[in-house]
Amino acid sequence: MSSGMKFRVKKIPVKIERLSVILNQGDAEEIGVLVGDRVRVTFGGKSCTADVQIGTGLIERGEVGLYSSVMEELMVDEGDEVGIYPFPRPASVDYIRKKMDGHKLSKDEIYQIIEDIVNNSLTDVEIAAFVISNYVKTMDFDEIEWMTKAMIETGETITFERGIVVDKHSIGGVPGNKISLMIVPTIAASGLLIPKTASRAITSASGTADTMEVLANVNLGVEEIKEITERVGGVIAWGGATYIAPADDKIIQVEYPLSIDPKPQLLASVMAKKGAIGAKYAVIDIPTGEGAKVPTMEIARELSNDFVELGRRLGLNITCAITYGGQPVGRAVGPALEAWEALKAMEEGKGSTSLLEKSMGIAGILLEMTGKAANGYEAARRLFESGKTLEKFREMVEAQGGDPNVKSDDIPIGDKVYHVESTYEGAVVNVDNKRIVRIARAAGAPKDKGAGVYIHKKKGEVVKPGDKLLTIYADKEWKLTQAIELALKEPPILVSGMILEKYPSYRMI
Amino acid sequence: MSSGMKFRVKKIPVKIERLSVILNQGDAEEIGVLVGDRVRVTFGGKSCTADVQIGTGLIERGEVGLYSSVMEELMVDEGDEVGIYPFPRPASVDYIRKKMDGHKLSKDEIYQIIEDIVNNSLTDVEIAAFVISNYVKTMDFDEIEWMTKAMIETGETITFERGIVVDKHSIGGVPGNKISLMIVPTIAASGLLIPKTASRAITSASGTADTMEVLANVNLGVEEIKEITERVGGVIAWGGATYIAPADDKIIQVEYPLSIDPKPQLLASVMAKKGAIGAKYAVIDIPTGEGAKVPTMEIARELSNDFVELGRRLGLNITCAITYGGQPVGRAVGPALEAWEALKAMEEGKGSTSLLEKSMGIAGILLEMTGKAANGYEAARRLFESGKTLEKFREMVEAQGGDPNVKSDDIPIGDKVYHVESTYEGAVVNVDNKRIVRIARAAGAPKDKGAGVYIHKKKGEVVKPGDKLLTIYADKEWKLTQAIELALKEPPILVSGMILEKYPSYRMI
Repeated sequence: MSSGMKFRVKKIPVKIERLSVILNQGDAEEIGVLVGDRVRVTFGGKSCTADVQIGTGLIERGEVGLYSSVMEELMVDEGDEVGIYPFPRPASVDYIRKKMDGHKLSKDEIYQIIEDIVNNSLTDVEIAAFVISNYVKTMDFDEIEWMTKAMIETGETITFERGIVVDKHSIGGVPGNKISLMIVPTIAASGLLIPKTASRAITSASGTADTMEVLANVNLGVEEIKEITERVGGVIAWGGATYIAPADDKIIQVEYPLSIDPKPQLLASVMAKKGAIGAKYAVIDIPTGEGAKVPTMEIARELSNDFVELGRRLGLNITCAITYGGQPVGRAVGPALEAWEALKAMEEGKGSTSLLEKSMGIAGILLEMTGKAANGYEAARRLFESGKTLEKFREMVEAQGGDPNVKSDDIPIGDKVYHVESTYEGAVVNVDNKRIVRIARAAGAPKDKGAGVYIHKKKGEVVKPGDKLLTIYADKEWKLTQAIELALKEPPILVSGMILEKYPSYRMI
Repeated sequence: MSSGMKFRVKKIPVKIERLSVILNQGDAEEIGVLVGDRVRVTFGGKSCTADVQIGTGLIERGEVGLYSSVMEELMVDEGDEVGIYPFPRPASVDYIRKKMDGHKLSKDEIYQIIEDIVNNSLTDVEIAAFVISNYVKTMDFDEIEWMTKAMIETGETITFERGIVVDKHSIGGVPGNKISLMIVPTIAASGLLIPKTASRAITSASGTADTMEVLANVNLGVEEIKEITERVGGVIAWGGATYIAPADDKIIQVEYPLSIDPKPQLLASVMAKKGAIGAKYAVIDIPTGEGAKVPTMEIARELSNDFVELGRRLGLNITCAITYGGQPVGRAVGPALEAWEALKAMEEGKGSTSLLEKSMGIAGILLEMTGKAANGYEAARRLFESGKTLEKFREMVEAQGGDPNVKSDDIPIGDKVYHVESTYEGAVVNVDNKRIVRIARAAGAPKDKGAGVYIHKKKGEVVKPGDKLLTIYADKEWKLTQAIELALKEPPILVSGMILEKYPSYRMI
C-alpha cells in the first residue's frame, strides 16, 4: 500500500529465531509503522517479511538494525542498503480474531494460520492469541482434523516401503514413564515397524528422548529414522531433530509460559506426529489420577473418545489405554536412572510390577490391533521374557550409534547420593508426582543425566523408622544440596501418621 | 528455590524496555531454566528480575548477555560478574489463568496483575493472555472497578489546590475530532479546571496531542499540568509524557497487534485517566455510526450505562454523549489541518456545523453538570462567540510554550496538493471514515504535521462533475503520490450513481 525507504544495515549480533528489524523511532513514524507492525525487507532479488522493533539510542536515522537471522535470509552484509516497505498484517491474524470471537474456522483459515506459524509470519503474541482462543472457545472435530492435517502437511513426513507401521504415545504427566524403551523393541521384535519420535523434558525430569540418549544417539533426521526402522524394526529418536509437525514446537513454546494445553492442541499435536510417520495403528497412553495431567476417569474417557474420533477422520486406528498415573511408573526418575531401570528389566526378564505390566499391556494392545496375537499381553510378555525384547533393543542401540553390549550396571549414575529415611512407622499413603519431579530437577535432571530419584517405597508399602523412602542422586554437590533441602521441605512420600505440613501456630496430625 | 551461578556480563547494545538476559543453552539447562522463565540477577546489593532468552552462537558458557536496560538497572559494566538464580513465575500468571478459565478475580489478584504489568514482571505473551481473557470472558463491575483503581494507584496522580476539576474524553474512531481544542478553552473560560491529557494517534490520522502540538508543547509532566491548569484553567497535554495510569500504555501495546479493545480495558483505561487527575465531572463522547468504533445506538447505550455505573463506583459524575460518528467531524483531517480548522472557528466565532454543534454540546453538558449554567449549550456558545474561548485558548498556548498570537492562516499546511474531483452528478451518500484515515496517513499524517485531507463535500451535499470532493495535502512528494493512488483505488467519498467497485466480470450500478 505505502512506499518505503532505503536503509543502511547495522548488524545486531544476537541470534533470534523471529525475523525482526530495528528502526529509529523517527524513521518508523516516517514510513508509518509501529512496534509489532510488519515490513517487507528487500535486497537484490531477495526479500523477507519481518516485524518492527524500535531501537532507542542505538539505531540512527537512515539505519536499520538487522539480526543475524534476517541478514542470513537476505545474504546481506553490514553497510549494505536494503529497502523497507510497510507490509499488511497477515490475514491469519483476522482468523485468530474470528476464533477469539467464538466462530468456527474454515479449513483454509486453519491451514493459513498453521502455515504462518511455521514460516515465522506470526509473533509470539499472535500465536498465544490463537492458543488461548482454542483454550477458551475450543474447536469442533472438523477444525481439529484440519489443524492436524495442516500440521502434518507443513512438515516432513515419512513413507515406509514395507511393513505395518504402528506407534504409541503417552500424553505425559507421570514421572518415571520409561515404558517406550521396553515397548518399542518388543513391538519391533514382533515384526511390526515402530518409528518412535519422542520429546525431551520441558517440565518433567526426563523425556523419553533424554532417557534413550543415555544409551544411544537420538538426534536423527527423518532419513535415518526411516532407514533404521526398515532395517531394525524400531527406533527411539528425538522429534525435535526432525522437521515433523514443526508448528507444534512453536505452539508448545507459547503454551509453556501460560501453563495451558488446550485440548484441540493436545489432540492435534499427538496425532500429527503419528500421521506424519504414516502409522496405521497407535495406542495412546492416558495416565490418570491425582497429580497426573488427567485427574479423573471421566475426563480420561472423554479424551479417549476424542482421540478415537480424530483417528477415524485421519484413517488411523486408535486405542486408548487409560493407565494409573497417581504415582510414578516404576521406581526410577531421571534419565540415567530410568535407562538403568528399563535395561535392567530387559536383562532380567522381570522388573517393577507397574513398569512391566504397563509396558507389556500397551505392547499387547498393539499386537492385538494388528492381528499379531489373540492375547497380546501374553505374546508381548513371551517376547520380553525370552530375551527377544533385549536383543532387539541392543540392535536399536547399535543402529543409533550406541554400544550394543552395554549392561545396565555400566550406566553412570550420579555419585553424589543422599538417602531420605522414614522417621515414622506406617504405610505409604501418597507419592507426589510433582514433588518427585521437582526434587529430581533440583538434583540436575534432565540436564545432568546421572541425576534423579529412586523411590524405595510406593503407595501401600509398609515402612518402619529408618527405612529408606527415596534416594537422591546428583552429579554435582550443590545440586544435591538443593534437592535435599526441597525433599525435606516438601516431603514427596507420605507415610500415614506423618505431619503433613507445619505452620507456626497450627498443626494437623 | 534452586541455587544459581555466577556469570560474566557481555553487553548487548540493544535498548529494549523489558528486562531480559541472554544465556548460553548449556547454562540455561544447567540452572534449569527455559526461554521465558524468570531469573533473579544480582550484583552488589542490587537485584532485578529478568526473563531468559537463549543466545545461539553469541553467548559462551559462563557468559550472560545483558541489554542496556538491565545493565542500567543494576549499574553493572561489561566483564562484571553477576549472580543468576531461577525465580518462580509471579503469582499473577496464575490469576491470569484463573480469568482465562472464566472465574472472577479478587481485588488483590487484580491489583497484583496491574502492579506486575507496571513493574515489567509480565511478558508480552502474559499481558496478551490477560487482555484476551478479558475480551473473551469479560469482567464484572467489581473487577473493572478494582482494575481502574489499581491503574490509578500504580501511577502518578494530581491533586488540585482549588476549583472544580472536570474532563472530557472521546473514545475515538471518528476522524477529524478536534473538538477538545474548542471545548477545553471554553470550559476553562467558564472558571472550571480542565487538565486534559490526550493521546497521540496510533491508527488514526491525528490524536488530540498531535493536533495541539502544532501550536504548543504537549510534552508536559504532571507538575506542569497542575501549575498551568491552576493558573490558566485548562491545558491539553500528551498523556504519554506523564506517568498517569502507566499500566494502560503497556496494555494498549499488546491490544494493538491483535486489534482488540476489550470493554473492561476500554472502561478502565478512560476512567483511570479521569480519576488520576481528580476529575469530579466528566463527559464521555461516544461517536456512533457506520465506520466508527461503536456501530449502533444499542451498543452505545449499553456502553454509556457501563461508564455511568463505573463512575458512580469511583465517585465520578459521568454523562455520556452519544454523537454521530458515521463521517468525519468538521472537514479537516490531519494535525495541522485540524489545528487550523479549530483555530479558524475560534477566530471567526463560527465554523463547520458538525464541529461547532458537537464541541458546544459537550462543553454545555459540563457547564450544566457543574451548575455553571441552566442551558449549557447556550452558555458555551456565548463564551465561544464572544471571543472568550479564543482568548483562553491563546492563554493556554502561551502557557504551553507556543505563540499566543498565532493566526490560523499562519499554520503551515503541506505544500504538495492534489484535488480529487467528482466525475459524477449526484449527492454524497457516504464519507468512509477508515478510507479517509488511510489516505491521510498515506499522505504522511500524523508524523508529517502538514499532511492530511480536507473534505469539501460531506453526506447529503450535492455534487456536480468537476466539483472538488477532497483535497490531499502532503509535505513530501512521494507520500502525496501514494495517497493519490489510494484515493483513486479506494474512493472515500461516494456520490450516488458512482460505480462502487469494479470487478473483471461483475458490475454493480
